Amino acid sequence: MSNSPQILPDGLVTSPQGFIAGASYVGIKTYAPEKMDIGILLSEQPCAAAGVYTTNKFVSPSVTLTKRHVEAGKVRGAFVTSGIANAGVGEQGMLDAQECLALAAEHIGAEAGEFGIGTTGVIGVELPMALIRGGMASITLGTNGGGAFARAIMTTDRTPKSVAVAFECDGRTVTLGGCTKGSGMIHPNMATMLAFLTTDAAVEPGFLESTLRECSDDTFNMVTIDGDTSTNDMVLLLANGAAGNREIRAGTPDGEAFTAALFMLCSHLSRELVRDAEGSAKIFSVRVEGALSRKDAPQAARAIAGSTLVKSAIHGNDPNWGRVVAAAGYSGAELDVSKVSFYINDVTIMESGAPIPFHRESVVAIMSRGEVALTVRLGLGDYAATAWGCELTEEYVQFNSAYTT
Amino acid sequence: MSNSPQILPDGLVTSPQGFIAGASYVGIKTYAPEKMDIGILLSEQPCAAAGVYTTNKFVSPSVTLTKRHVEAGKVRGAFVTSGIANAGVGEQGMLDAQECLALAAEHIGAEAGEFGIGTTGVIGVELPMALIRGGMASITLGTNGGGAFARAIMTTDRTPKSVAVAFECDGRTVTLGGCTKGSGMIHPNMATMLAFLTTDAAVEPGFLESTLRECSDDTFNMVTIDGDTSTNDMVLLLANGAAGNREIRAGTPDGEAFTAALFMLCSHLSRELVRDAEGSAKIFSVRVEGALSRKDAPQAARAIAGSTLVKSAIHGNDPNWGRVVAAAGYSGAELDVSKVSFYINDVTIMESGAPIPFHRESVVAIMSRGEVALTVRLGLGDYAATAWGCELTEEYVQFNSAYTT
Repeated sequence: MSNSPQILPDGLVTSPQGFIAGASYVGIKTYAPEKMDIGILLSEQPCAAAGVYTTNKFVSPSVTLTKRHVEAGKVRGAFVTSGIANAGVGEQGMLDAQECLALAAEHIGAEAGEFGIGTTGVIGVELPMALIRGGMASITLGTNGGGAFARAIMTTDRTPKSVAVAFECDGRTVTLGGCTKGSGMIHPNMATMLAFLTTDAAVEPGFLESTLRECSDDTFNMVTIDGDTSTNDMVLLLANGAAGNREIRAGTPDGEAFTAALFMLCSHLSRELVRDAEGSAKIFSVRVEGALSRKDAPQAARAIAGSTLVKSAIHGNDPNWGRVVAAAGYSGAELDVSKVSFYINDVTIMESGAPIPFHRESVVAIMSRGEVALTVRLGLGDYAATAWGCELTEEYVQFNSAYTT
Repeated sequence: MSNSPQILPDGLVTSPQGFIAGASYVGIKTYAPEKMDIGILLSEQPCAAAGVYTTNKFVSPSVTLTKRHVEAGKVRGAFVTSGIANAGVGEQGMLDAQECLALAAEHIGAEAGEFGIGTTGVIGVELPMALIRGGMASITLGTNGGGAFARAIMTTDRTPKSVAVAFECDGRTVTLGGCTKGSGMIHPNMATMLAFLTTDAAVEPGFLESTLRECSDDTFNMVTIDGDTSTNDMVLLLANGAAGNREIRAGTPDGEAFTAALFMLCSHLSRELVRDAEGSAKIFSVRVEGALSRKDAPQAARAIAGSTLVKSAIHGNDPNWGRVVAAAGYSGAELDVSKVSFYINDVTIMESGAPIPFHRESVVAIMSRGEVALTVRLGLGDYAATAWGCELTEEYVQFNSAYTT
């Protein structure tokens, strides 16, 4: 084990010491019972907890309640249910979220205030509390329960998405684990992004929060499926200190190592989100370099990755650089066309604002082969960022035009 | 004729007194020669001119040159060419734009600085100057040339879009005319929005500019096809005073009447843009009421009209109110879910943040019948705005994934 983080085989949200989890099927997600539909994650010890939440003002009470509990400083676990979002149901939403946590706490022998709650699925339908009341006792928690828990947050996700990484810190092995659900471009109305992250490191709470925000901005927030921000998006990180290391703080080598490990964890999960969103189809990366300011780089990268014209061009293997540069142009980032260069994988398409003749058939072949890498050099400064997107397909429109009817 | 503006039958950009226009086909737009591909609009008298231009930083030199000439205060006409955008071609773009105006000026016996230039079409290809040089002399200008001019700006537009309105001012009949091209959701890479507006009113230049900006914000800027802003978007308004009225100024009854007429003109053209974008398919309006601030209302309306999930739902006649309210939630506008109400045409779908049971089959039937009107009441203030959008179809993806290849 070294100071550099390494991905563990078969890693789960329960890979770090002291975390247990479990899940069950109670009849909510009738279209996919094998995915389960309620679950609990718990640290046996007290935790430092940090969260990143949706910025949508139409917010689920599940997010509001989680935020309140995290701010109160006692959260060491989470209850999750999938199939119904618990959003857009008026005041009943908060009552149901609170009852879920009371039921989970009673089942585990904990307090409701020690839990966050993640809900995902259809908007505007109340949680079926009778099913949840009846099923809570069927959840059995264990150190191998991370796999079941990862399935209990899935909606239209095709595969569960879990990972763990470890690194050496203060003579101990520190482990981070996590699972996420997405972002199907099929049925993205159920595409709430939920991520539950755990670590057995002892981490100073203020640093835990700032490093989670920083890593999320560079990973989860750089994934764009269709530009819509869910009512229920949430990333929750629990640190229980079971590894026995001295508390990790900001501005130290241990802090840097922890951030590197957390970035690896979040980056891996984000890529899995996009990969699952596209199913058997195509994802692409957008690298923006040479931006004038720190905020310009992700702004331009996200605008390109989110453009329906660019996404359609990716689908059609169409090296339509005009759409890419036009999206950078309306992103709000500083741009001087005469300094812009653009590359598809390693082929130069545009240099200093003018198109370079390229062998179209070769580029079409490159684009049709697998992951497409778009690189835009703005030539104005030193900032860079990467965003990920997926193609826009006819199937997206078909599925999304016939979702609730 | 009254103080209130009225739409004239068969109105054109040459309906106001003193304006002449003409167009020709020189071989650029080979896919649609009947639409012509070069044109000239001219006022026989000097004009006050005002413009609204794309905010995209990847801007066509045609826009840059037009802006420069308008600011110099002598513009009384425009040269247009369609099929090629004159964008993304390096320094050659400005040289070609300047030569186009020199050729037009020579043909008419005017100065190059008296013209704006509108170009629209494929990005990254140079203007075929040999064709334009050879064809300029074939343009014949006349008072009935507005129809030909309107066709010379079309790309994938299915129909030319012209209108004129008139009202009584200072004992004279004042006329406004205009034409526009869009915004095909088929091939939106050629969807530059160009509008040329004329009036025979005498209008104080500062007021002309401020009222054009205000009207454009409420009309052309509230049309969203796919969220992408073109490199070439431009609205140009010329006022030549041929009606003989005393100069119209801000803050007067005449000023208010002029603004009302200009709003009617722009509003009509904007609706035609959306209607043509969708071809035989469906458009929808989004009315946001009760916004807390002046900027919140259009921001929320545009976010809803531009959401790919909402556009897919419109396509599928799916009363998926969750997507509508979620889009308002991430728009940046102030929103308190517990105060939000939502209506599809006249049916209440959500009231005070909770869904109202509605007869789904009736709403699906309403949505499938024609224009869908979405209304969101935020319940926070007194500001309102309306945006227009069109459905997202499988055909959009097909066409846009196979455009340049």
